[in-house]
Amino acid sequence: MNKELVKKLIAEFIGTSFLVMVVVGSGIMAENLSSNQLDVLLANTIATGAGLTVLIWIFISTSGAHFNPAVSFIMFLKKELSLKEFNSFICFQIAGGLMGVILANIMFGLDPLQISQNERGGFNIYLGEFIATFGLIITILGVRNLNIHLVAPAVGLYISAGYWFTSSTSFANPAVTLARGLTDTFTGINPEFILPFILFQIIGACVAMFLMKYLLTGEIND
Amino acid sequence: MNKELVKKLIAEFIGTSFLVMVVVGSGIMAENLSSNQLDVLLANTIATGAGLTVLIWIFISTSGAHFNPAVSFIMFLKKELSLKEFNSFICFQIAGGLMGVILANIMFGLDPLQISQNERGGFNIYLGEFIATFGLIITILGVRNLNIHLVAPAVGLYISAGYWFTSSTSFANPAVTLARGLTDTFTGINPEFILPFILFQIIGACVAMFLMKYLLTGEIND
Amino acid sequence: MNKELVKKLIAEFIGTSFLVMVVVGSGIMAENLSSNQLDVLLANTIATGAGLTVLIWIFISTSGAHFNPAVSFIMFLKKELSLKEFNSFICFQIAGGLMGVILANIMFGLDPLQISQNERGGFNIYLGEFIATFGLIITILGVRNLNIHLVAPAVGLYISAGYWFTSSTSFANPAVTLARGLTDTFTGINPEFILPFILFQIIGACVAMFLMKYLLTGEIND
Amino acid sequence: MNKELVKKLIAEFIGTSFLVMVVVGSGIMAENLSSNQLDVLLANTIATGAGLTVLIWIFISTSGAHFNPAVSFIMFLKKELSLKEFNSFICFQIAGGLMGVILANIMFGLDPLQISQNERGGFNIYLGEFIATFGLIITILGVRNLNIHLVAPAVGLYISAGYWFTSSTSFANPAVTLARGLTDTFTGINPEFILPFILFQIIGACVAMFLMKYLLTGEIND
Repeated sequence: MNKELVKKLIAEFIGTSFLVMVVVGSGIMAENLSSNQLDVLLANTIATGAGLTVLIWIFISTSGAHFNPAVSFIMFLKKELSLKEFNSFICFQIAGGLMGVILANIMFGLDPLQISQNERGGFNIYLGEFIATFGLIITILGVRNLNIHLVAPAVGLYISAGYWFTSSTSFANPAVTLARGLTDTFTGINPEFILPFILFQIIGACVAMFLMKYLLTGEIND
Repeated sequence: MNKELVKKLIAEFIGTSFLVMVVVGSGIMAENLSSNQLDVLLANTIATGAGLTVLIWIFISTSGAHFNPAVSFIMFLKKELSLKEFNSFICFQIAGGLMGVILANIMFGLDPLQISQNERGGFNIYLGEFIATFGLIITILGVRNLNIHLVAPAVGLYISAGYWFTSSTSFANPAVTLARGLTDTFTGINPEFILPFILFQIIGACVAMFLMKYLLTGEIND
Repeated sequence: MNKELVKKLIAEFIGTSFLVMVVVGSGIMAENLSSNQLDVLLANTIATGAGLTVLIWIFISTSGAHFNPAVSFIMFLKKELSLKEFNSFICFQIAGGLMGVILANIMFGLDPLQISQNERGGFNIYLGEFIATFGLIITILGVRNLNIHLVAPAVGLYISAGYWFTSSTSFANPAVTLARGLTDTFTGINPEFILPFILFQIIGACVAMFLMKYLLTGEIND
Repeated sequence: MNKELVKKLIAEFIGTSFLVMVVVGSGIMAENLSSNQLDVLLANTIATGAGLTVLIWIFISTSGAHFNPAVSFIMFLKKELSLKEFNSFICFQIAGGLMGVILANIMFGLDPLQISQNERGGFNIYLGEFIATFGLIITILGVRNLNIHLVAPAVGLYISAGYWFTSSTSFANPAVTLARGLTDTFTGINPEFILPFILFQIIGACVAMFLMKYLLTGEIND
């Protein structure tokens, strides 16, 4: 494995690990401080939006700062990642997410691995994930076309909005969804809902890719 | 209809649809989590400011990212849109808003279309809409003259402030106002108040255009 | 009076008017929605930080976007404003502030002019104003030296922090202080405290100017 | 001592002083307004994130805007500071922090110097400081490599996230940690926990430096 790919995989591992720590850790901190669910989601939003922006700025020039198998899949379809890179990226993203949830649980004195009991089922919730991931991909593809430095704040702001305007609170990321199955705290998800979440995320991402291809190039197919 | 106009109309449709989803959806999410009206408006503000900024960044190079008939009207008066473009823009903005409110209602498990009962009448409220839209137009015309990349955060921040400093919470957008008539939730508006809202929005927009023409060119008329 | 000065004075008038509307209006809106004083100040902070950033972006290339006699005084001392300009600026800033507080009161259905009963006295509060204005001036002089486009978000963020870290909540602006004497709502100030506020603002501004002159040029005097 | 070093030390002194005033002062203001611990941390977060961003913008071109002995230590290891500069920087950072906590206490009418009683012990808390400072250093080294103007918002946003996602609330700064031992308010730390905090901060910083050296240059050693 060449050194450039190693760097990219380290970046994806650490970035996804921090992303999951931010999402899960801020939820735990907020729940420890208040039982008001709106306030907890607000704190979770501010931490996630801020953290995600910074993580993308840190790692964008190393690996592209995907931290998200749905994003890597789109980049693979757009031939910006080889199959080998795509496979390696998603392994390290999933491993990073696992590392992140374990560290978040440990930092707050909880069992390192737990099974979430949070019910997140129903067609309207899955529609939320479809819309959330569709929006994430049009954000990335649209804004990087405008100015690459704006991708980081755009994604941070998009997810900040998504926590509120989608009924699923915008997981929009298969690796983060898997990791969130392993904490029985505010941001957890009962593992039985993980598969439909990921399915709707992938579909939303693909539809968004076709739309943006048309808007940016005038073609649906290359 | 040529392909460039089709792209613009798709951008206006999707952008306005997401804008209304963000506004309405975040209001519903917040109301579901708390009955504290200040907290609900705060969540609504953060989601709207963040979402609006991102949507403008995504679509500004495709259609100008108006998502707002009042903005398109000003661009028509400034001869930056033809009459045909103007007419098409407002149709797709209104249709996008309709799509957005339906999706927001569905995502949260509510009836797709409802009639809002929110009373939003009174001269002082209409004055709020006049000031809100006046401020929105001076923001757009003033900031695009400084740096086009700053228009998106400027509009997002302006509306974030507007939710609080105007008595009407700054609808400032006829298409969004119409759509908000169709959800009986936090951000709704009883349809009987829609006409005066739109009237004061248009007047505020026009006054702002004349002011900025003077400040930027030294002339009132071309 | 030449046309360029007229444009500048209109910009200062409208900008200060909007600034006061944002500060006072958002305080009234928040107080109407909740009696929790922390939440009210939080809403006031978010609106003010956002609004101030936008207003500076809109008007910075027209008048410099001072909206603040203390800032104009420093620019006069630095010979960036003539005496005539300085005198005109502060008149229009004060008039704009008056217009802003009247509009804010009217928008929320209150008497247009009121005398505030808010007690804001004591040496530790005045020390707060000294520190607040010192910080504002080092922000403006330091950041414009880095990048002129960053002055707007820097001032918006500085005041957002100032609402919390100074005991006086960082008025830091003589024109806004005068205007806030005329609303008996959250952001008001009993007029008996206005004079010491302005005095400590001016002193803080001058000390900051000398510090930054040394840091940026290595000299205390020209 | 040459004039350029004097300017740098003044910048570090004033910057660290303001940083501590923002952190400590906003905590006191928030505690005065509400007993809800989540709301207090939220206000503390918004003030700190905003203030830190501005302070870095103001002073980055003068001294590099470290305000943090851990950051200066990394710059010394990277040979960007001489030993003499490093020693002077940390003295003025510590003195500035002391000045800041005294001013914050005085501004809010409290005893100028107090001993904090806040218990902040335990391995999971110290792990929090390790992660917090690791993250801070990868933020600084990663983002300055992308765009120097982005370092200020990146650090502000990183600390905003860190207040929530780390169990220690991300002190991540030995000079600020020392200063926070001297206020018995929300942001204080009982002095008995200061030494382990600083130890884990330094370790986190060093690990981060090696990681980023590898990611940015492909080498662990020069």
